[in-house]
Amino acid sequence: MTDVETLGQHACCGGSVRFLRHQSSELGVPATFGIFLPKEALAGEKVPVVHVLGGLTCTHETFLIKSNAVRFAAEHGIALVAPDTSPRNTGTAGEDDEYDLGTGAGFYVDATHAPWSAHYRMESYIRKELPALTESLFPLDGNRRGIMGHSMGGMGALNQALNHPEFWKTVSALAPICHPSVIPWGRKAFDAYFGGDPAKWKECDPTLLLRSGHQHPTSILVDQGLQDQYLADLRPDALVEAAKECGQALDMRRHDDSDHSYWFIQTVIADHLSHHAKGLKA
Amino acid sequence: MTDVETLGQHACCGGSVRFLRHQSSELGVPATFGIFLPKEALAGEKVPVVHVLGGLTCTHETFLIKSNAVRFAAEHGIALVAPDTSPRNTGTAGEDDEYDLGTGAGFYVDATHAPWSAHYRMESYIRKELPALTESLFPLDGNRRGIMGHSMGGMGALNQALNHPEFWKTVSALAPICHPSVIPWGRKAFDAYFGGDPAKWKECDPTLLLRSGHQHPTSILVDQGLQDQYLADLRPDALVEAAKECGQALDMRRHDDSDHSYWFIQTVIADHLSHHAKGLKA
Repeated sequence: MTDVETLGQHACCGGSVRFLRHQSSELGVPATFGIFLPKEALAGEKVPVVHVLGGLTCTHETFLIKSNAVRFAAEHGIALVAPDTSPRNTGTAGEDDEYDLGTGAGFYVDATHAPWSAHYRMESYIRKELPALTESLFPLDGNRRGIMGHSMGGMGALNQALNHPEFWKTVSALAPICHPSVIPWGRKAFDAYFGGDPAKWKECDPTLLLRSGHQHPTSILVDQGLQDQYLADLRPDALVEAAKECGQALDMRRHDDSDHSYWFIQTVIADHLSHHAKGLKA
Repeated sequence: MTDVETLGQHACCGGSVRFLRHQSSELGVPATFGIFLPKEALAGEKVPVVHVLGGLTCTHETFLIKSNAVRFAAEHGIALVAPDTSPRNTGTAGEDDEYDLGTGAGFYVDATHAPWSAHYRMESYIRKELPALTESLFPLDGNRRGIMGHSMGGMGALNQALNHPEFWKTVSALAPICHPSVIPWGRKAFDAYFGGDPAKWKECDPTLLLRSGHQHPTSILVDQGLQDQYLADLRPDALVEAAKECGQALDMRRHDDSDHSYWFIQTVIADHLSHHAKGLKA
């Protein structure tokens, strides 16, 4: 058992929000994450769990406190696990220089190129290390595990679910980066983390994954605001087209007046928890 | 009409969250506030409005984004107005030195002592200037105006309602500072802002206001967590006792497992919006 330090614990909506830190073997540094345990879990019942991935610049706390997700997770008796968006304080040269690379911008991939490859291993962290750790500590049901995220985290959730559909039983995304390999954010991160190897792109680009035969057995829920200031870089149409071509069920809901903010997330979050509850508690 | 600059505008829960900046005549500096307009207000209907006051270190944004209040305000068709917790960048010596005095810590009083008295006039700002401004800009019903707040802001809400019960028709508070003149936070702020004049205390201490005959015609709703790390400084028992002695209706709800955080606020916020809706929409 890894040593885990409790940094904070707060009663919320009948359950408990906790912040924990552990020495991550994948990341090679201490990592902090948040978790919400509904009252059913506090009573010892094994509950479904949804992992929530934040966007650029977010921490392990941002999505939990700003999204309103806890209220609806409590209503459904679902736990939430919220990792950070990158390793921190790794000593990697340049990691704090830009908001969209390094700290706060791990893109949920395993870097293969130095200097990033030593610590920037968020893909393995959120799929291998964090679920195993949290499921060893708390009554979370590994057979009922979903994933969702916002923006860069929406991309991470889609990539995880399409690469490992047996591991993540349900998936949804809020304003996700749908086709990172063709836009500046994604190309910059992929060029750094993969050293310019385009062969890696198809493993972490939701649109390319769909085009190369990856699918998820459930319908994917995506919400996208049409006033989103980053709409041109998110490429929801590419995801819709790829899903249509391969027969992937996808419910892409577009909202005329919504932007990219947590105000948008607060507007639709109840539907995302209902989506996961329906899939995980069926 | 004062010039008002819109800093941000976000669709949320069918309505609109906006952040606005204006040159405040009371504060003598530009002031930023947040507002939530429910869909009824966007359609031109005059709606009830609840002013929400944050605690120490908070900005005009904190309570709105972290409390979940917007969702329930939308359900009730109520607007929210969220002022900052102090003036900012006034140039007052020492205003940024401590978290509990100056910037982020205006205590919602009008300072009478130099150097604070030039700009630190939050009592007048939130009662005179901000309601008049927002009600001139948006369809808010000045006859249906409530106030609530958290911690220092809970104290501010109680003081406003007890001093001006005709102005604020409903009132509630979350973990408020109930008896500031006998605890370190309050004494430090009052000594600075009032230059050690204890005669001012009775105007801005909820417990002293009740003891000196001030009352509110409605029942006051207060929620207080018993795991609150500041419980000894909040003095809820003093407020309960003073209310009992003078016959003020007060619903002090104590929660065994809750602390002072926004996780606690998220747990009870729905009841506060219901409380104000009941009073303002009767």
